[in-house]
Amino acid sequence: MDKILEKAVEEGKKMTALGRTATYIPELGRMDKSYLGVCVCTGDGQYYKYGDADERFTIQSISKVISLAVALERCGFERTFDRVGMEPSGDSFDSLVKLDLTSDYPSNPMINSGAIAIASHLASEVSFEQMLKFTRLLCMDDEITLNERVYHSEMGHISRNKAIAYLLESKGILENSVEESLKFYVRMCSLNVTAASLAGFGLVLASDGVDPATGKRLLHSWVVQIVKTIMLTCGMYDGSGKFAVEVGVPSKSGVGGGILSVVDKRMGIGIFGPSLDEKGNSIAGQHVLRELSAKMKLHMFADNVPEF
Amino acid sequence: MDKILEKAVEEGKKMTALGRTATYIPELGRMDKSYLGVCVCTGDGQYYKYGDADERFTIQSISKVISLAVALERCGFERTFDRVGMEPSGDSFDSLVKLDLTSDYPSNPMINSGAIAIASHLASEVSFEQMLKFTRLLCMDDEITLNERVYHSEMGHISRNKAIAYLLESKGILENSVEESLKFYVRMCSLNVTAASLAGFGLVLASDGVDPATGKRLLHSWVVQIVKTIMLTCGMYDGSGKFAVEVGVPSKSGVGGGILSVVDKRMGIGIFGPSLDEKGNSIAGQHVLRELSAKMKLHMFADNVPEF
Amino acid sequence: MDKILEKAVEEGKKMTALGRTATYIPELGRMDKSYLGVCVCTGDGQYYKYGDADERFTIQSISKVISLAVALERCGFERTFDRVGMEPSGDSFDSLVKLDLTSDYPSNPMINSGAIAIASHLASEVSFEQMLKFTRLLCMDDEITLNERVYHSEMGHISRNKAIAYLLESKGILENSVEESLKFYVRMCSLNVTAASLAGFGLVLASDGVDPATGKRLLHSWVVQIVKTIMLTCGMYDGSGKFAVEVGVPSKSGVGGGILSVVDKRMGIGIFGPSLDEKGNSIAGQHVLRELSAKMKLHMFADNVPEF
Amino acid sequence: MDKILEKAVEEGKKMTALGRTATYIPELGRMDKSYLGVCVCTGDGQYYKYGDADERFTIQSISKVISLAVALERCGFERTFDRVGMEPSGDSFDSLVKLDLTSDYPSNPMINSGAIAIASHLASEVSFEQMLKFTRLLCMDDEITLNERVYHSEMGHISRNKAIAYLLESKGILENSVEESLKFYVRMCSLNVTAASLAGFGLVLASDGVDPATGKRLLHSWVVQIVKTIMLTCGMYDGSGKFAVEVGVPSKSGVGGGILSVVDKRMGIGIFGPSLDEKGNSIAGQHVLRELSAKMKLHMFADNVPEF
Repeated sequence: MDKILEKAVEEGKKMTALGRTATYIPELGRMDKSYLGVCVCTGDGQYYKYGDADERFTIQSISKVISLAVALERCGFERTFDRVGMEPSGDSFDSLVKLDLTSDYPSNPMINSGAIAIASHLASEVSFEQMLKFTRLLCMDDEITLNERVYHSEMGHISRNKAIAYLLESKGILENSVEESLKFYVRMCSLNVTAASLAGFGLVLASDGVDPATGKRLLHSWVVQIVKTIMLTCGMYDGSGKFAVEVGVPSKSGVGGGILSVVDKRMGIGIFGPSLDEKGNSIAGQHVLRELSAKMKLHMFADNVPEF
Repeated sequence: MDKILEKAVEEGKKMTALGRTATYIPELGRMDKSYLGVCVCTGDGQYYKYGDADERFTIQSISKVISLAVALERCGFERTFDRVGMEPSGDSFDSLVKLDLTSDYPSNPMINSGAIAIASHLASEVSFEQMLKFTRLLCMDDEITLNERVYHSEMGHISRNKAIAYLLESKGILENSVEESLKFYVRMCSLNVTAASLAGFGLVLASDGVDPATGKRLLHSWVVQIVKTIMLTCGMYDGSGKFAVEVGVPSKSGVGGGILSVVDKRMGIGIFGPSLDEKGNSIAGQHVLRELSAKMKLHMFADNVPEF
Repeated sequence: MDKILEKAVEEGKKMTALGRTATYIPELGRMDKSYLGVCVCTGDGQYYKYGDADERFTIQSISKVISLAVALERCGFERTFDRVGMEPSGDSFDSLVKLDLTSDYPSNPMINSGAIAIASHLASEVSFEQMLKFTRLLCMDDEITLNERVYHSEMGHISRNKAIAYLLESKGILENSVEESLKFYVRMCSLNVTAASLAGFGLVLASDGVDPATGKRLLHSWVVQIVKTIMLTCGMYDGSGKFAVEVGVPSKSGVGGGILSVVDKRMGIGIFGPSLDEKGNSIAGQHVLRELSAKMKLHMFADNVPEF
Repeated sequence: MDKILEKAVEEGKKMTALGRTATYIPELGRMDKSYLGVCVCTGDGQYYKYGDADERFTIQSISKVISLAVALERCGFERTFDRVGMEPSGDSFDSLVKLDLTSDYPSNPMINSGAIAIASHLASEVSFEQMLKFTRLLCMDDEITLNERVYHSEMGHISRNKAIAYLLESKGILENSVEESLKFYVRMCSLNVTAASLAGFGLVLASDGVDPATGKRLLHSWVVQIVKTIMLTCGMYDGSGKFAVEVGVPSKSGVGGGILSVVDKRMGIGIFGPSLDEKGNSIAGQHVLRELSAKMKLHMFADNVPEF
C-alpha cells in the first residue's frame, strides 16, 4: 500500500503545475498549488499516508455531503428532495442557467444552488456548533475548526452565491433568509480538515455509516446509501461521468483541493491537492485516485477484488 | 383625432379581460385591470385624451428610458455602453440566462439587468431628487411623486432583481452596492405618472429633446437619437420586433400598464392599461397603438404622412 | 423470487394507464400500453418470468449499450471517446442544445447524438449482420430479428435524428454519411427482443462479459466495466440520477418500453412495459425495478446482500 | 457626395485586414478580403460609386429580404408569419438553440432557420426563374445570374443548414422537402450582384416599392413597410441593435460581403466588403455606413435632413 501511494503522489506532483487554485476566493487563491497528499483509511482502522496528508485546508464543497446527510437524517427523504433534485445538471457547479430556464428547483444537492437550498432547510434545524461537532465525529478528527480567514474571505466575495440564493428565494425554495442560508453554507465550507480527516469520513461511509473504531452508528443505512449514490453521479461536478468511468468510486471534491472517496465496504480515501482543473476538481488528486483505483481494483464494477 | 381615440379605446376595453396585472408585485397585482386611457400630445402643445388618461399609476420600466437618457448626458456614450449592450436579448425582461451563459454584460438597457447596471452608474452621479425633478420636466408634469406604497411593495418582493444585481456584481459591472443600485432603480420605477405625462415626455423626444412649449433643450440631440433607437429595437421586451412591424414607433412599456410612444417630429402618445400580456406589455394599450398607427399613418416607414 | 415478481408486476400494471407509448414513431404509438412483463436471469442460468416476458418489442435505445460495447471492442477507448463524452447531459435524449451551444461533441453515448456518432464509427467497422449475430449471442436469444415495420416507420419519421446527425456532420464528428450512420443506428434500434432476451444480456454484463452457460468471454472485462458505469450515470436519460438513488443498478431504457438492468455479479433483469413517462422511460417498469431492488437489496450500495 | 464616399472607403480599407472571409463555404473563403466598394443610388436615378462597386459577388443572406418580400406578396401576412416570428433572436444567425429549446418556430425571417422556412413556402409558389427575373427587376440589374461555383460549393458544405431544415421539418414547419427547400434557399443565396445592384434595390425600397425610373410599382406599400422594419430590427444578425444605434437605416448583410441599406424616401446604398466580423457582417462596410450616416445625417432619428 505505501508504495502504491508514494508512486501515485510522486507522479501526481508533476501535474500540480497544470492547474490553478480557486482564485475567486482570495484566501484560497493565495494557497501554494504544489501541495499534494493522500490518506487511505482501511477497515481495520489503519491510516496510510503519503505527502501532505496532515496539512489543514478548507473542506469547501465536500461539506455538501455532510449537509445532505444531516438533512436526510433530520428532515427525511420527502422533505429534503421536495425542492432539490437528484440529477446531474450537465452544467458547471455555480451555474444559474437551468434554474432560471427550465427548472423550478436545483438539479442536485452537490452543486451550489442545491446545497444552498439544503443549507436553508438545515439552518432552522440544527446549530452550526452541532454541525461542527457532528463533522468531527464523521471525520474522526477532533481538531476540525472554523477557518475564520477563509470564512471572511468567502463572505466578502459571495456575489455569485448571493445571486443563486436570491434566485432560489424568488422561486420560494428557501426556508430561511438568504443571509442565514449563506452564513450556514459558507461556515460549513470553511471547516479546516486534512486528507486524513476525509479518509476517516470515507471509511464511515464505506462502513454503512458505522464508526468502525467504536461500532457506533453515526448515520442511518438508507442515508448512507443515498449519499454515496449522489456522490457517484454528481460529486465531481460536470466531470462526474468521466470520473465514474475512470475511478469508479463515490467521491466529492471541493475547491479547497480536497477529494473524499468511498470504496464501499473497503476503505475511505482523502486527498489534498489545491491545483484545480477548469471544472474545479483537484488535477493531481484525480490522477492519484485513477492510479489507486487501477492498482487496487477499486472500481465498483472491477472484475474482482484482490486482498492486500 | 378625438374620434380615432374614442374608437380605439372602446375597442381596446374589450381586450382588458384577456390579460392580468403584474401579480409579482402585490401592490400592482391589486390594480383594477379594466382601466384604459390614452393621451396624444401634438407639436402645437395640444393634449387629446380619452378614457383614464389622468389616472395615476407607476411608471415602472418606462423609467429605464429616463435613466438611459440621463446616463448618456452625464457619463457619455463610451462609459454608458462600457458595461451594457445595445442588442435585443431574445429573452424575457427578467432573464438571467444570457448573462450567465454567453455574455459578460447585460444585452441592453431596457431589460432589468441592463437598467440595474445603468442605475448603479447613476447612483453616484445624481440624487433621486434631481431625477424626480428632471422627470417632471421631461413629462411636463409637476405632480409626479414617488408612490411610497408601490415602492415598499416592490422592495419587499425584490428577490429576482437582487439575483440579477448580485450576478452583475459578481461580474464587476456594478459601480455601487447592490442595495444602493436597487434602491435607485426601484425608486425610479415607483414614480406616479399619467398617460398625459407620458404623452408629454413622448413629445419632448419627438421634438429632438426640446420642450416645445418653452423652446428649451432638455436633452442633447444625439442622446435623443440613441434613446429612440433603443426604444424601437428593445422597448417592448421580447415583443419589440412584432410591435415595430405592427405599430412602428419607438415605444417603451412598463408593468404598471403604461406605454410611452414617440412619433418622431409629430407627437407623443401615452397609454395606461394595466392588463398585461405574457411578455409584460399592456394588451389593450398595444391594440390602441395599432389602431392609431393604422388610422394616422404613424409607422416610421408608412408611405406618406397626412395632415390633421 | 416468483412471488416478488408477481407482486411487483401486479402493482405496476396499475401504473400503465399513467403514461403513453412513443407517439413520434407511429408503429410504436400503436402499441398496447397495458403490456407489462419482467424476467430475471440468475447466475445459475435460471430464468424467472412474470407477465409479458416473452412478448417481442423493439430494443430501441437499449441497443446503444451494444453499440458502445462493440465500438470499445473494435476501436478502443481512445478512438471511441475521441468524439463523444461520458457526462450526463442534463437534457432530454434528443436535445440539440448543448451540442449547438457549449460543446464540440455529444455529451455521452446513451443519448441520440452520442449514439449516432458511435453508429457512424461502427458503420465502417462491422456489418449489420455481424451486429445482429453478436446481439443474439449477448442476449442468448437466437430469435432476435429486424422488425421491418418498426424500421420503416422510424426511417419515415426521422427528421429530428437527421437534424442531430447533420449537426454532428457539420462539426466533423461523423465518419460515414448521415444516411449510412442513421441506417445503422435505426436498424439496431429496430431489433425485436423480449424481456427474457434483456435479462440474458444483463446476466452477461453482470458476469463480467462472460456467457455463464458456456463460460465463453463475449466482451473484455474493461469494456464491461465502462459500459456498466455509463449505464449507471446516463442510461435512464435525464432521469438517471433519481433512478440510481431509487434502484441503484446500471440500467438502460428504450422507448419501445424495454429496460435492461444489471445487478453486478448476481443477475440480469429485463423489463417490457411500453407506457412511458415524459422522459421516455417505462413507468411501470421503473416501479417493478424499485420493488425488486427494495425486496432483494439489489442497490449497489445496499448494506448487505441476502441469498435466495 | 463623391468625396464622402472616397474618404469613407479609403478609411474603411484599413479595416479589411481585421476580419476574415466566410471560410465555412470554401468558394467564399477563397475570396480576396481586401475588396471594398460602395454605391449610392439617389432618387433622381443617379449612381455614385467608389472602389469595387461593380465587382460581382454572391448576395447570400441579402436574398432573405427578397424572399420575404415575395412571400408576403404571394402568401400574404397571415400565412407568411404563421410559422416564422418577427423577433430578434439574440443568437447567431445559424443557431439551433432557441428553436430547439424555447420556441416552436424560427425567431425571424432574417436568420437561416426563418429563411429556410420561407424558402419552403415559396418553393411551391414560384419558380427559381421567376425569382431570378424579379431580383433583376428589384435591383435594376439585368446581369444578375446564378454563380454556379458558389452554389455547388455551398450545397457541398450544407450540413448545418440541413440540421436546421430537418429540425424545422420535425416541427412540421416545412411545406416542401428539406432538399427542395434548401435548393431554393441556396440558389437565392448564390445570385451574383454588385454594390450597384444593391443600391438600386435599396432605392426601390426607399421609394415605397416603386421603380423610380419607370414609375412602376414592384412591391405593395405594406410589404415594403414590413420588410424595412424587419431589416431594421433583425437585418444585421445579432449586431442589429448596435448597428441601428450607430447607422440607423434598415439594412441587410450577407456573408458574401454585401450590405443593402435603405435610407427611406432618399436613397439606396450598396456595399461590397468580404472581410467579415465574428457576427458575419462586413467590417469595413459597417465603417463606411457609419461614416455616410454621420456625414449625410441618414439616421432615421437624425435631427434634420440636409440637402445635397
